[in-house]
Amino acid sequence: MSSTDARHPNIWYPFSSMKGGYPVQKVVRTFEEFIYLEDGRKLIDGISSWWVNIHGHSHPTLAQAIYEQALQLEHVIFAGFTHEPAEQLAETLCHWLPNGSQKIFFSDNGSTATEVALKMAVQLFHNEGAQKINIIALEGAYHGDTFGAMAVGARDGFTTPFHQFFFDVHFLPFPDSDHEELALERLEALLEEACPSIFIFEPLVQGASGMRMYTARWLNEALQRCHKHQAISIADEVFTGFGRTGRDFASNYLSHQPDIICLSKGITGGILPLGVTAANQKIVKAFEDQPFETAFLHGHSFTANPLVVAAANQNIALLKNTATIERVRKICSMQEETAQLWRDASLGENPRALGTILAVEAAGGEGSGYFNTLRDRIYQHFLSNDILLRPLGRTIYTGPPYSIREESLQKIHTAIHTFLKETH
Amino acid sequence: MSSTDARHPNIWYPFSSMKGGYPVQKVVRTFEEFIYLEDGRKLIDGISSWWVNIHGHSHPTLAQAIYEQALQLEHVIFAGFTHEPAEQLAETLCHWLPNGSQKIFFSDNGSTATEVALKMAVQLFHNEGAQKINIIALEGAYHGDTFGAMAVGARDGFTTPFHQFFFDVHFLPFPDSDHEELALERLEALLEEACPSIFIFEPLVQGASGMRMYTARWLNEALQRCHKHQAISIADEVFTGFGRTGRDFASNYLSHQPDIICLSKGITGGILPLGVTAANQKIVKAFEDQPFETAFLHGHSFTANPLVVAAANQNIALLKNTATIERVRKICSMQEETAQLWRDASLGENPRALGTILAVEAAGGEGSGYFNTLRDRIYQHFLSNDILLRPLGRTIYTGPPYSIREESLQKIHTAIHTFLKETH
Repeated sequence: MSSTDARHPNIWYPFSSMKGGYPVQKVVRTFEEFIYLEDGRKLIDGISSWWVNIHGHSHPTLAQAIYEQALQLEHVIFAGFTHEPAEQLAETLCHWLPNGSQKIFFSDNGSTATEVALKMAVQLFHNEGAQKINIIALEGAYHGDTFGAMAVGARDGFTTPFHQFFFDVHFLPFPDSDHEELALERLEALLEEACPSIFIFEPLVQGASGMRMYTARWLNEALQRCHKHQAISIADEVFTGFGRTGRDFASNYLSHQPDIICLSKGITGGILPLGVTAANQKIVKAFEDQPFETAFLHGHSFTANPLVVAAANQNIALLKNTATIERVRKICSMQEETAQLWRDASLGENPRALGTILAVEAAGGEGSGYFNTLRDRIYQHFLSNDILLRPLGRTIYTGPPYSIREESLQKIHTAIHTFLKETH
Repeated sequence: MSSTDARHPNIWYPFSSMKGGYPVQKVVRTFEEFIYLEDGRKLIDGISSWWVNIHGHSHPTLAQAIYEQALQLEHVIFAGFTHEPAEQLAETLCHWLPNGSQKIFFSDNGSTATEVALKMAVQLFHNEGAQKINIIALEGAYHGDTFGAMAVGARDGFTTPFHQFFFDVHFLPFPDSDHEELALERLEALLEEACPSIFIFEPLVQGASGMRMYTARWLNEALQRCHKHQAISIADEVFTGFGRTGRDFASNYLSHQPDIICLSKGITGGILPLGVTAANQKIVKAFEDQPFETAFLHGHSFTANPLVVAAANQNIALLKNTATIERVRKICSMQEETAQLWRDASLGENPRALGTILAVEAAGGEGSGYFNTLRDRIYQHFLSNDILLRPLGRTIYTGPPYSIREESLQKIHTAIHTFLKETH
């Protein structure tokens, strides 16, 4: 493995200390599931570059779609104007999303998608005259890095400097098998208070907190209670959307549906930034007859930028292709089989799969959660095997592009297997 | 003018009521300074589509740059990885920005760029042990629509439903000629408190609050006081950057420089969403030796996306072209001459120009600020003249693409002139 550090002096890298930590690698090309480095190495992108890539890198069809759009109608202000690429995406999503979404609001990333959802819900209750609103989230949540998104996320080491600037949020215990009842009781108690409630959650799996999974059964129970009490429910499907959990959206596993769904990451096939907030009839109806003064006065300069929207339309066309659906199915079964193999062999802690996601905890290290010291060792180990995996503390996971070759996924499985055996 | 409303039922348009308000126009093509509508009309884009467009629409050179990048290296996770397009942009900006910026942090829009700046400043003081931090902004400010960005913006009708969720901010009186001293006194009093301070502002002109201009002299005085008291100063140049004020950045008018500069909008030539937060040595030094636990743990999935960064690099190359510089100079003198003409003729209230921006208030209407009822009439009037101007209440302004033909800009001037005369 290269020991050189290619970080550039004029760049402040995300989620990184300025010195030490992982050595930064210089990328010269990406193609299919591969990342080509300046030093000649070729890495398998085992995490879809932060869970965004779907069809492999530098996909020529996506490139072509953007190029054609850029020559025709590259951008126009979206207040007072509309265009076909945005309309096509909005129609597709409203038909496709399982919660009966009626309208799509466009922004630029997952963080803004969740802020938009929170603002819609808050303003709806405010317009109805609410003086106080309960905002409810799950312990360990991650919804983004802007202040509103951070406030509904875990109050942990990632956000310590900012806690004093956060609004109040009620956190339910994470509903793992030992805390399902307690979490429901706590939710019910909050819903029964005199003020209206907003409940935001990552459905079925919390990504950043360590690929922590919980059951659709629990979430159905929680959503049923939300509906009973006229709470607004927000599913943050930024990570889970577009096939990541084996269904089109994690909400497809649910019989009770959220009012609002947030999307980003995979929506453009992982090639351009886009956030989407999809609202159902209940939300839309409340804003339908509002005059300008009490309308939803939110926007970003590049709202519904035609280039990102064109990428999203092309991504969805590729995703609905039979060949892609077959590949997703194959990945899902490979992930589940491998989790079962490790469970049978008692390898690692809690091997688990959900759709295209496979996760397991390695033994050892010090410190809790993301800050566990094993993180650096795991990262370096896989990099030295020409595989990009970015552990969450001692949680090793893979969620590859759906176009990954079987042999590449097998190589990832074998490398994890070996590491788990060595650290057993 | 068309009376049909093309809004699509599945789209929630930004800054718009769902019914009524401006009729939404369907765009089929954009080219140079023109927006082509489905009904055959061709509008002059007099506001650069929300102040983002620089070289005219659907510029082939920018399209080509994105396309080539999309085939080579479309995207890769930017934690632990780096690439040439991002390095080139970071180097260019650090050399070019007048505040001696050392490092560039990438995000996806102007709102996130200001949130990143606020978070850098807050965490710096937190790491130094501060218990309380004064956050200071200007009355009437607009820094974006996410919760942190809203909190440092005007507490007005746009954000009423969310006020109870905002952290505390101290607002200085807007430093127009009547309030310069008062604003400085108030700033000085806050800076002299025992806790450290952060001062965020739109340099020289507040865009959304009505193209309200104030002097570089005042801002120099304010920044001098900030430096004396080791406050952190943040210039939100999202609107003012990249030539909009006639200089490369509004900060080029200043002798005392801000610690952090936020950029977006024009940075990609207005064709793709990108936000940038540029920090000087004082900020960087404070984070240089922080271990991972106290590093700046912020990021977005598409941080430094190669496609948006490639668009930015190509935009800057076009912007530094002699022909572009000449055109900007020509626009600046046409705007200033027109403002002078209206002042001489006592047309409208307070005709004013700053670089490529020309603004004036029309007489009449009811309600204050953005909510003034004249807004709809102004918008419709110019649309019926095939000109897109989007007034801020009764403030009419234009800030065109720098590639605009002289005759197009003259057409805008004439239309405003006629409107001012009619409403005199």
